[in-house]
Amino acid sequence: MKIIELHKSLTESNDRDADALRARMKAAGTLMINVMSSPGSGKTTLLSRIIGDIGKEVRIGVLEADIDASVDAERIEALGARSIQAHTDGMCHMDAGMTAAALDEMGTGDLDLVFLENVGNLICPAEFDTGAGCNVMLLSVTEGDDKPLKYPLMFSESDALIVTKTDALSFFDFDLKKCEERAKRLNPAIRIFPVSAKTGEGMAALEEWIRKRMAEWKDTKT
Amino acid sequence: MKIIELHKSLTESNDRDADALRARMKAAGTLMINVMSSPGSGKTTLLSRIIGDIGKEVRIGVLEADIDASVDAERIEALGARSIQAHTDGMCHMDAGMTAAALDEMGTGDLDLVFLENVGNLICPAEFDTGAGCNVMLLSVTEGDDKPLKYPLMFSESDALIVTKTDALSFFDFDLKKCEERAKRLNPAIRIFPVSAKTGEGMAALEEWIRKRMAEWKDTKT
Repeated sequence: MKIIELHKSLTESNDRDADALRARMKAAGTLMINVMSSPGSGKTTLLSRIIGDIGKEVRIGVLEADIDASVDAERIEALGARSIQAHTDGMCHMDAGMTAAALDEMGTGDLDLVFLENVGNLICPAEFDTGAGCNVMLLSVTEGDDKPLKYPLMFSESDALIVTKTDALSFFDFDLKKCEERAKRLNPAIRIFPVSAKTGEGMAALEEWIRKRMAEWKDTKT
Repeated sequence: MKIIELHKSLTESNDRDADALRARMKAAGTLMINVMSSPGSGKTTLLSRIIGDIGKEVRIGVLEADIDASVDAERIEALGARSIQAHTDGMCHMDAGMTAAALDEMGTGDLDLVFLENVGNLICPAEFDTGAGCNVMLLSVTEGDDKPLKYPLMFSESDALIVTKTDALSFFDFDLKKCEERAKRLNPAIRIFPVSAKTGEGMAALEEWIRKRMAEWKDTKT
């Protein structure tokens, strides 16, 4: 498992860099999914489950972005998937230049699917296009159903909302229906997947959606 | 309950603004505690509990900072404490100028204690001195004991780490001892308070610490 120290892209043209990276990944037929959430919403646990479930049929790589440490990349690598740990030099998000540099270091030519596990932060990552083919966000039931009201941008920018830790629903005041209504008010097209990576509940529907996105990514031309 | 729309301070001298605000609050004998954490760690629930426990003897005000919504300030006001909702114009943190503007709007002259409930974000708020007399951070047991490794700055900048939702400890893989060791490695002086705002467990020790900080704030001269 490699660790790469990243620094903020010198270029100001993040959107252009993001489009260039997306076009490159499209030409290679590799779908990159940008995974965003608060710290501790269960991103690494969810990705570990997905790798266990579909990692034999789909060649998966994971780019782990954190300010420090390498615990997540180590967890992923122990599952047999390719992984790289990117350190963001104190920064609270990934931009397209940083993402491209880390992908180059990891190597993606032979992969079908790359997850970018963004820095744990419900705000800033939503402001930067990473060049991913699609964006998903996690919200754990322990965080509360009011989060779409308080952090609207990430809900607007995500293709799917994955509600995690549903096995703990009985323990917390989380109204799934209210959360869905609030998310759909911001983003009517958003797909919502309540899951428990611990019990496996809801994972099949999410994985089916990922497979479909991969097929579309390979089929359509930009 | 008022809502104030804030914009990033024009001045670049945040540290100077912070020192000026701190001196002003010191002269008035009002302690401001900056409360930081990830979204959904239970900041508002903790403050509600503190207001219920000590709000009769201590005059408390709460500055609620969020990108959008006013659900938190409404919860606080329903408890009879003074509150103002500050909207941060999309920004992921509070700076000293924004804090001073919101405090002016709320009025703090007759208060003993002001909590600044910062934007839910485990990264950026730690980079900006708000002018508070002390900093505390929350980490809920649902977020994981690895957070000091991945988000070190906030642990370094906080006088106290409040580990919340301990009533859910049996439900989650959270090693309190490991978390404490990791936090103390970053900040040997940090005080650690495991609490459940739901059951009240651990609240007395935290409230005792707050009372002591208030007494020191009134007694000592800068």
